[in-house]
This record gives sequence, structure tokens and C-alpha cells, in this order.
Amino acid sequence: MFNSFGNIFRLTSFGESHGSAIGGVIDGCPSGIEVDLEFIQSELDRRRPGQSAITTPRKEDDRVEFLSGIYESKTTGTPIGFIIENTDQHSSDYDDMKDIFRPSHADYVYQTKYGIRDHRGGGRSSARETIARCVAGAIAKTALKQLGITVTAYTSQVGPVKVNRFYKELDLSLVESTPVRCPDPEIAAQMIELIKRVKSEGDTLGGTITCVATGIPVGLGEPVFGKLHQALGSAMLSINAVKGFEYGSGFEGVQYRGSQMNDVFYKFETGGIRTGTNNSGGIQGGISNGEDIYFKVAFKPIATLLKEQHTVDKSGNETILKARGRHDSCVLPRAVPIVEAMTAMVLLDYYLIAKTRTL
Amino acid sequence: MFNSFGNIFRLTSFGESHGSAIGGVIDGCPSGIEVDLEFIQSELDRRRPGQSAITTPRKEDDRVEFLSGIYESKTTGTPIGFIIENTDQHSSDYDDMKDIFRPSHADYVYQTKYGIRDHRGGGRSSARETIARCVAGAIAKTALKQLGITVTAYTSQVGPVKVNRFYKELDLSLVESTPVRCPDPEIAAQMIELIKRVKSEGDTLGGTITCVATGIPVGLGEPVFGKLHQALGSAMLSINAVKGFEYGSGFEGVQYRGSQMNDVFYKFETGGIRTGTNNSGGIQGGISNGEDIYFKVAFKPIATLLKEQHTVDKSGNETILKARGRHDSCVLPRAVPIVEAMTAMVLLDYYLIAKTRTL
Amino acid sequence: MFNSFGNIFRLTSFGESHGSAIGGVIDGCPSGIEVDLEFIQSELDRRRPGQSAITTPRKEDDRVEFLSGIYESKTTGTPIGFIIENTDQHSSDYDDMKDIFRPSHADYVYQTKYGIRDHRGGGRSSARETIARCVAGAIAKTALKQLGITVTAYTSQVGPVKVNRFYKELDLSLVESTPVRCPDPEIAAQMIELIKRVKSEGDTLGGTITCVATGIPVGLGEPVFGKLHQALGSAMLSINAVKGFEYGSGFEGVQYRGSQMNDVFYKFETGGIRTGTNNSGGIQGGISNGEDIYFKVAFKPIATLLKEQHTVDKSGNETILKARGRHDSCVLPRAVPIVEAMTAMVLLDYYLIAKTRTL
Amino acid sequence: MFNSFGNIFRLTSFGESHGSAIGGVIDGCPSGIEVDLEFIQSELDRRRPGQSAITTPRKEDDRVEFLSGIYESKTTGTPIGFIIENTDQHSSDYDDMKDIFRPSHADYVYQTKYGIRDHRGGGRSSARETIARCVAGAIAKTALKQLGITVTAYTSQVGPVKVNRFYKELDLSLVESTPVRCPDPEIAAQMIELIKRVKSEGDTLGGTITCVATGIPVGLGEPVFGKLHQALGSAMLSINAVKGFEYGSGFEGVQYRGSQMNDVFYKFETGGIRTGTNNSGGIQGGISNGEDIYFKVAFKPIATLLKEQHTVDKSGNETILKARGRHDSCVLPRAVPIVEAMTAMVLLDYYLIAKTRTL
Repeated sequence: MFNSFGNIFRLTSFGESHGSAIGGVIDGCPSGIEVDLEFIQSELDRRRPGQSAITTPRKEDDRVEFLSGIYESKTTGTPIGFIIENTDQHSSDYDDMKDIFRPSHADYVYQTKYGIRDHRGGGRSSARETIARCVAGAIAKTALKQLGITVTAYTSQVGPVKVNRFYKELDLSLVESTPVRCPDPEIAAQMIELIKRVKSEGDTLGGTITCVATGIPVGLGEPVFGKLHQALGSAMLSINAVKGFEYGSGFEGVQYRGSQMNDVFYKFETGGIRTGTNNSGGIQGGISNGEDIYFKVAFKPIATLLKEQHTVDKSGNETILKARGRHDSCVLPRAVPIVEAMTAMVLLDYYLIAKTRTL
Repeated sequence: MFNSFGNIFRLTSFGESHGSAIGGVIDGCPSGIEVDLEFIQSELDRRRPGQSAITTPRKEDDRVEFLSGIYESKTTGTPIGFIIENTDQHSSDYDDMKDIFRPSHADYVYQTKYGIRDHRGGGRSSARETIARCVAGAIAKTALKQLGITVTAYTSQVGPVKVNRFYKELDLSLVESTPVRCPDPEIAAQMIELIKRVKSEGDTLGGTITCVATGIPVGLGEPVFGKLHQALGSAMLSINAVKGFEYGSGFEGVQYRGSQMNDVFYKFETGGIRTGTNNSGGIQGGISNGEDIYFKVAFKPIATLLKEQHTVDKSGNETILKARGRHDSCVLPRAVPIVEAMTAMVLLDYYLIAKTRTL
Repeated sequence: MFNSFGNIFRLTSFGESHGSAIGGVIDGCPSGIEVDLEFIQSELDRRRPGQSAITTPRKEDDRVEFLSGIYESKTTGTPIGFIIENTDQHSSDYDDMKDIFRPSHADYVYQTKYGIRDHRGGGRSSARETIARCVAGAIAKTALKQLGITVTAYTSQVGPVKVNRFYKELDLSLVESTPVRCPDPEIAAQMIELIKRVKSEGDTLGGTITCVATGIPVGLGEPVFGKLHQALGSAMLSINAVKGFEYGSGFEGVQYRGSQMNDVFYKFETGGIRTGTNNSGGIQGGISNGEDIYFKVAFKPIATLLKEQHTVDKSGNETILKARGRHDSCVLPRAVPIVEAMTAMVLLDYYLIAKTRTL
Repeated sequence: MFNSFGNIFRLTSFGESHGSAIGGVIDGCPSGIEVDLEFIQSELDRRRPGQSAITTPRKEDDRVEFLSGIYESKTTGTPIGFIIENTDQHSSDYDDMKDIFRPSHADYVYQTKYGIRDHRGGGRSSARETIARCVAGAIAKTALKQLGITVTAYTSQVGPVKVNRFYKELDLSLVESTPVRCPDPEIAAQMIELIKRVKSEGDTLGGTITCVATGIPVGLGEPVFGKLHQALGSAMLSINAVKGFEYGSGFEGVQYRGSQMNDVFYKFETGGIRTGTNNSGGIQGGISNGEDIYFKVAFKPIATLLKEQHTVDKSGNETILKARGRHDSCVLPRAVPIVEAMTAMVLLDYYLIAKTRTL
């Protein structure tokens, strides 16, 4: 209920930022999936700190060790346990935050709810937890690949700098060609410029990530409380710093009329039924209709500033906080693989669920 | 997994638009909650078609009949079964849609996924299902009231007409004073005007609903996959026609810097810790921090148009569809109580869950 | 969590004995299953009171009304809501039990746990709730039939009178030929004799039911916490008055040695692998091995006696209780269809789950 | 669904017998529980092979390493991840069983269901998985201790040698005083004698374990599908080699009459209501009534024999198998702590659930 995600294909994650390891258990993975360790590691590397000049200089190695569920390089259908050791943790960077509540962080609510917290590196509230999601997501992607399904996300906005083109007008193969993971080269350059500037000021940035899934069969999702976009939204809203989710025409589309937004059906030349437009974002009535699925996710600016901030300590005394340590000033580039991972997990889960809907 | 919502306080709903009844089972309701049938009925009346000149003229009476779980006007802790009979259904209005897929509706995906569908009134995909949610929501609201928690939603945008003030600057007691459920009287008048005009053209409108919850204790929500805003987002995305969800600073806030968005803590005069601003929307790290919770939900324009639309039938032949029947042209006013109902269900569920986090 | 059973194929039941109706929602039923109303009714009739001289003379009609999820006699994949109205309820029979705790009933624990209870007819603790299971079980049986799976239960013991032959030596087609549902005619006669005698004394009897499922494919069940016999045991232990469950060699087999109990594998003439003996009861390591599944369920004697019993009332005063009303003196014959129903639900659920274990 | 147990307090386990580690994640553990590592290790030691002359000579060290969820010796409310490394694994002992299906083991069903299996040491079907349960059980016991609840199990039968006294006539403090964990010294001696003899013959034994829980508050358990004995039965039936479960009067009691089996209520001298007898085993209508809970679990004789057995290989060829390796000939003594662990997990889970049943 608390640290598990998914119905059939289900990840249970554990681990604090400065504990001995982050890890997880992937349950319900179909048997016989080829596990490509290099691919999994490459996904972790996309999330890894220190991968470029615009991310935190923390050097987390983040090597996954699989403990079970894989035999002769294939999934066996039994639970896949794995850990990623925490190394290069500088817990002393957090010593003076032991009793201070960082603004817009989870310190205060953890302390009040549980009566105890591991303050080092944010403990369980640290985005280090998302490594476990990237592991599960990489395995989900491998299974989806067999089914012809692809998932690609990209940074579509950083602060006020945004991509103004629809995903179809972009060359998504360029995503990995810039450290900011934006496939529009000009905008990418502006984003990088902005991140560097804001970082030098000790401040931080938010933005949006857009995600596109192709090759989806008709029929994933359930009508009422298992809507596919509901599961995707839930997945995205579980990612640290996410403040919003929209799919298809989203918030923008609410100002238009039904006659402008409806996706009219056509007979496809090669057989099959397709829509002309795709304001539905590939999902109608909660169920995939075979068109591309696309959605957008809002990330707030990172809460940890290398600037002075007013705050309060455990005893209720007002004080001034200035974070030390090695922090990102913009989480977007590193969040791209996390968005993809969660998307892949949802799609595989719903693919498996859909198999149960007929005898 | 499919038609149930919630963990402890859990609604399982059933029913098609033109079947004999809509209904549900509320499981996990605490015992001893006073059940006020008049209040429940008043909530259903807020959702009911035909309540004003700007909604559909369908005259659905929508009287709930409780079958179990209540004894001497109190919940007993056993499951609360209930039904709402379907009356005034004009199934013949749908005869010529039996084999035609309405654009941006669930007809095509249901047919493909299940190989069978009840086409009358949209069957299970009809928003009539949400009556069950209003029943469960009314009971949740009653329980929350005992805890000092209130939930209020309002129409914040219809088509391009939007409320430009923050919820704190509005008088939320005015929500029910106009049929469009917008507490800003001037904007409300413009919305009503617009709805009437668009309706006369056989076209439809979308918009947004904003929801505010007050009196929330610190500590509802779980750190990773049980984040409170994740549950709220999932709840909202399960409502028909919803295309997006954002809370606190949402999508708008991504363009600002951390130093502008962080909610700084202060010592409250009367004791306790509070934030100055509330860009966090009352939730930090997935857990309520005691401030007001607020969020916004995007609804697409209604897909059923009283205009001709190009489409395709079951055999793949292209054809022209013009809906008959009695339809809303703007769902927003009637969706307000549904947003509130789902919010109340989530808050009560998470309140009950929070009780299990200490011995 | 409380009133739902099953993972994919899932029944949520509701209703008190003397409330207005018993009912349920079957979620996750595959689409396209032909619904045979006469068969379903015949299953309810097997459970119905008043069906023979050895059951209670209560005349419960128990007609199921389906409210959703079925269209043109087929399941549509949407939730199947149904109710069975409570008629012929003599609530006044229970008036003097309003404040008295009947021995070995749930009265005392309900009152203490919930602070409130519907005492009439036992409220939620009444076995009337099992009607909902018979409805869901009948639909599950219909689906299983398409898969070649059969489920047959029979009364194997009443008080000290027991069937001494293994199920393979019995003609299971005789189960319905006697009102006690025991396929061994001689033993059946003794059981009936005993029931009549004990009933005339105002006393009650317990016994056992044996259940056999055939045509099971290899591979239903999961290795650790989803063992097939675990699900079957959980299903049986959820039935009123059940005190024990054993499968295959059960309790009896513990006194023998491994060399006596192991099921040795053989190559089957027509291909395939089979075991010679079946002490495993068709399940090895929690997973069906293709052999018949068989198990036995213990039912305690009915707690409601038409005799004086010492007890205590709500205020803690000691008192004497003598039940009135129309009660069974032996539940076994009427429990046979309930055991079958729960078994069918588990088998269909696990069949659907098994589909998700490969891509 | 597959490798998780519990609703609120939930263990997800992973690991194969000869993989690199066994482990698990405990989610939903209340915060603030003092974690006593020595106590946890002592529980693992009770389950450990090689602990006495009557168990397998395998020397598994079984040291648990906690990776998360504990800070300054207290649970923090976040998931508790842990691993136990597999050492002293002699995988080559299993080389000639790679393609052979051991009788009454899971080899054949795994191979058929998943198309792949880790044959070494039984892979996931090995009882080594139960180490994870002992870890979770030890933490549950610690929490229960704070609540005044105790759980004690003992070997009540080995082969045909059985304890003939009710648990109340035994001194349960003697359980750990003999390696067979039977508190009846004379019977214990006979059991040990029998185990040694059968072991020398290369054969194996089954038996029963009885478990007693005291200090249970009234009100744990839910009326219909969350019956407390149902959860206990499900827990027991998930343990390797278990063939049956009964509580209170169990199978034995079915031969008696209601007037003999009913537990009559009395007013307790010190206030409160108690039953005179306890044939209900502390549970009425699925809910604890404050009396001791007791139940019995049947274990089949171990399937691995050090004797020749006829069987079949993967290609369907008949062959002769003679296991090598270091095996128990009677699992009962080592299963005692596992029964206790699962019981403790259920009781804590249901204690936490019960907290949600009132506001």
C-alpha cells in the first residue's frame, strides 16, 4: 500500500539516501524475459548524478546487483530482488540539518507523522529511491520491446524556456544528444545556458517532461477506476517534485469546443480504424485506442537552495538555513529516465491485466 | 482492481447507464457514523441532470436506496450496499448508435477490448456511474466533518472564461448560489452566457474545477507510492472527461525559481509550525503539512455533439453521426460534487491509513 | 480487504440477514461468458432453506436479480451487480436476543468491536451472506466449464457418521440424489436418520465436506504466498462455521513416512507426465500438477440450539437463552454448494492470474 | 499478489535457495518499534539448519543484514529492506537433478508453468525462503510484546507419536528445552528417538505443530472475507509442506453436538465477559473474543528421500532418483519458529486493521 507500485507487475522499493543500500523487489514479472545487464546499467547511468556539467557533481556509481529471480540471464517468474549500494554518501553535510526543517522538503511532515526520521540526505524522501524504479523500468522496457512498444520522454520546459513544437515535429532520436535531454537543439542550448546561470546563483529551476509511447495495442486500461491515464498519472505523481500531470489535450484543450477537440474516426487504408487527430492522447474512456500515448509532467523547482532561507527547527525556534552539499539545480534531465521507467511499468502491468479480461 | 477505489474506505461501483440500476458497495467505513439521508440526497441533487437551465434536460430522479450496513441511522462497520434505479432512460435514442463508434467516446475501445458492449447511453462509460461516487463521498464527508475537515470545489474555468483570483480571495460560500457553481459572480455570469450560446450551436465546452480542503491534520499520505497528491490525482483522473491534474503551484509554478516557490516555515503565534506561502498545496513529500490542500482538474469539452460528425461503424464503413438525445453541453457544474466526493473519499481513506502508522 | 474475495475475479458481497437485500458485485469477470439464469437459480436452490425435510423450514425464495454487467445474456467485462431480496424474515423472532449474546455466535464480538450491531437474524454474521457467493460461484462454474474444469463437493461426515471410502470409489453423480448430499447411499441414510433424531432433541450437528475438482491444467498457483491450496483454504475458512481445512493426504497423512506419501512420476501412455498416487491432492509446491484437486472442510455443529443455554447480556448480567425461530440442525447439506462456489471462484481467479505469468 | 503477505504490515520476500541471497521488504511497520538485533538473530537461529543432531547438518549461518527502515535502533515507518546471504551452498549436489523431477516436489510444475527454473536446492520452492518470514515475524513479535500479546508454537506430533494433552495442561516454557520443540518431555524423547531411526533409514517424517496466542484483545478480524482464522489459515498454508489447518475444536469437534461444543458466556469476576470453554479457539464469527487463540497445522513428511525413487526427467523418460545432499528427515522442530513468525505477522496486521474500524 505504501511502497509498492503496480498490480501484476509490481515494484516494492526500499532504502534511504544514506542507508547502506537502495533496493527493491519486482514481483509478477513474466518468466522468460531476457535480462540485458548492460542495458539496465545504461538506464541507471542516465539517472545517475555527475553525468554532465549541468547535474550535481555527486559521483554515485549506482551499480545494481540482482539477488534473485534471474537464472541463465532470463527471468524465472519468481521475484527479482536487487540492491544498489549507497557509496560516496557525505552524511556529515547534513549534520546541521538534523533538527532543522528544510522549506518545501518532507522533514517536518516525516518528523510529525512518524516521530522519528533519518535526516541524512533526506532519508526516504530522497530521489535516490528512484534508482529502484529505473531498474524495474528497464526490465519492463525489455518486455515491452518484445511487444513492439516504445517509451520516450524528453525535457520540454526548463523554467520559462519551453519547446513550442508538438512531439511529432521533433526528432526524438536527438533526446540523448544533449545533456538536458531536449530534442530541440536550439531550445536545448537555451535550457543549458539557463541552468548554468541559475546554478551559479545558488538557485534552482523546475520544468516539464513530455513522454510518448508508441506501438500500444487497443485495449489497455479499464473503464472506471483502472483507467490507463489514471495509472499513468498516479505513476507520475509518485515521482519526487512532480506537481501536475496532463495527457492528450490536457489543460490547454479545455478552452476549445467539442467540435474542435473530438478525434474523428477514419478507416485506415491498410485496414483498421484510426483517428485523424489525437487530442485523446491515445486513450479514450480510460482505454488505449491504438494511437500514440503522450502526456506531460510538471516538476517544481528543486527545494534545496544553496542560499539562505528562513525556517524553523524541531523545537519551534526560527533560524536561518543554508544548505551545503552537492545538489542539482535542475532535476529535469535526470528525471527523464524516471518518467520513462514509470511509464514502462504501467504499460507492462496493464498489458498483463488486459490478458485476464477474456477467458 | 477495476471498479474499486480506495484502500481501507473503499467504493466498488457497478451499473450501466441504461441497465436497471447504478449502485455500489462501500467497504471499510468506520462504524458509528451518523447517516443523514437528506444530506446524501442533497449531494446527489447537486450532480443530478435537469437541475438548472444550463444542464441536460434529462429528468433523472436519482434516489439512493441503502440495502445494508446501516442500522438505526448509523453505520455498523459492515459493507454499505446501495442502488439508484435507472428511470427515464430513453434507450431508443441510441438505436442508431448501436454499431457506430462516437468520436472521442469509449465505444470503439470497449468493442475491441471486450468483443461486446452495451451501447445504450454509453453503458459503463457513462458518467451516470459517478452517482455511486457521490453516495460514498457524502458518507465520507460526514465522517470528515466529525474530524473538522471540509472539502469545497468550484468551477474555475469554462472554455476560455476563467477565474483569475486565488481561492483565498474568493467567497466559497457563494459556490452554490449560481447554477454554474463559480463563486466569482461576474465570471459566473459570463460562463452561463457562454454555455447557453454554445449549447444553442449544438457544441460543447470544457473547463477546470478547483478544489480546496481545509482542517487537514499533519501526516496524511505516505512517502513513496502512497503520496497524498498521488491518490488525489488518481481519484480525479478516474472521473470521466478529466485530462489533467495539478496541485499547489502546478504547471504554472514550473517557470519560477526555487527561491520564489519554496514555502518558508514560521513559528505560529498560537504554537505549531506553519508555512508562509502555500505553493506546496498543503502537501510536502507526499504528506499533508496542515495547510489547505488545493488542486485543479481539467475537463475536456463533452464529446457528444448535437452536430454532424464524420466517423466509422463496426464494419469499418465511414459514416456521418448526429447524436440525438438530451445532453449536457458543459459538464463542469455537475462535476463539482463529483470532485468533492472523490476528494472526501481519499481524505478519509488516508486518515484511516494514518492511524496504522503507529502502534 | 474486508468483504471482497479474489484477486482478478473478485466478489464483493454485502447485506445483512434481515436487511432489505443481500447482494454483491463480481468484478474482473472475463467478457463473453454466456450467463445461464436457470443454472444460477438452480445453484441458489441447492443452498436455499426449506428445500427438504432435513433443513430449516424457512421459506426463502432467494431469486437473484442482476443489475449490470450482462448484455444480451453475456458478460460484458464490466462489474456484475446483483441483489437477492430478503423476504420471509421474521425479525421479531430475534427481539429477545437484542441484548443477549448467543453462545458461539458473533454477537458479543460485533458489539465490542463496532459498538453497534444489527442483531436480527445474526445480521452480517448470518450465513445468508453466502447466497452472494453462490451467484458468483455459478458464474465461475460456467466459465470453468468452457475450460473443461468441474467442481463437485459432497457431505463426507455428519456427526460421527462418516464416508469411509476415497472419493474415487464413490459415484459422484449420486450427490444430488439424497437431501444430505452424500453419494454413499447407505451412509446417506444413516446421516439423515441422525439429523432427524438430533433435530427432534433441539440439538445440532457438525461434519465434513469433501470437494473434488477435475480437469485442472498444470500451473495454477504461485510458489510462495499465492499457493493454490492457500487460496482454497482461505476460501473455505471464510465460510461460516468452518473450523478446518486439509488437502490431499491432510492431517491423516502426517503419521506416514515420505517413502509412503511421495507421489512418484510416470510417463503417461498418451504422452504427458502423471503421478501414480495423488497424496499431493493435485497441488505440488503450491501449483496444480494436473491431477485431481481434492480437499476436506470441517464444519462445527450449528451454534443456535433450540435448547436452554446459559449466557450473558449486554450489561453483563447472566441469563438463560432459548432460541426461537426456524433453524437448521445440520448445515452440511446446504453448505455443499457454497464449498463448490468458493472453489470455482478460486480456480477461475487463479486461471486468470496464470495467464499473466508469461508475456 | 505472489510474494507478498499481509495487508498493512506486509512482507514481500525474494530469493532462491542457491542464489546470492534471500531477503525481503517489510512495509507498513509502525514507526517507533525498538529493534532488538539479538532477538531477531535468536529467532533465525531457531530456524537454522545444523542447530542440533536431529536436523540437517547443513551449516547455514543466516545472519540478517538490515538495509533500511531502521534508524538509531528504531523503525522509522519506512520500508525495512533486509538480506541474508546464501553461504555454504553446495550447488553441485543438485547437478544430476537438473533435468529430473523429484517426486512430490515443485520441479515439474515450475518447469511447466514458467518454462524455466533454477533447480539448485529447489530454487524458489526451497524452505530457505522462510528465513525472510522469521525476520518479519521477529519484528512483529516485538511490536506485539508491547501490546501484551504472546505467540508460542510447539511440535505436537511427529509421525505417529503425538502429544495427547491440551495445550493448557502443558508447560509451554519447556518448548525450547528439547531439540524437537515439544513441551511434553516424555513424548519429546520418543519423537527424537523416532527421528533418529527414520533418518538412518534415509526416510522422512511429518507431524503437526500447535500454536497458542495469548493476550489478544477482543475485535481482531473482520466478519466475512477477513476472518481472523482465515488469515491464520492462509498464513499457515503458505508454509512449505503444510497440508492442513484447524483451529479450536477443529476436525475432531465435528463429531460432537452443538450443546457439547458451544462456548457458554459468563460474567468474569474482575469484570468483562468470558467463555467457560474455548472450543471456538478464541475466534467467533471471524473475530477474536479475548480468549486464547490456538490452532494446529499438519506437515507432510519431507519429500526429499535419501532412498531410490522412480521418477521421470524433462524429456519424459522414466528414471531412478536418489537424492544426495544434506537434508532434514523431519521438518517439524525447525518449522516451529516459522509458524510463530507467520502468526505474529497476522496478529499485528489485524491489530493495525482494527484501528481503522472506528474514526
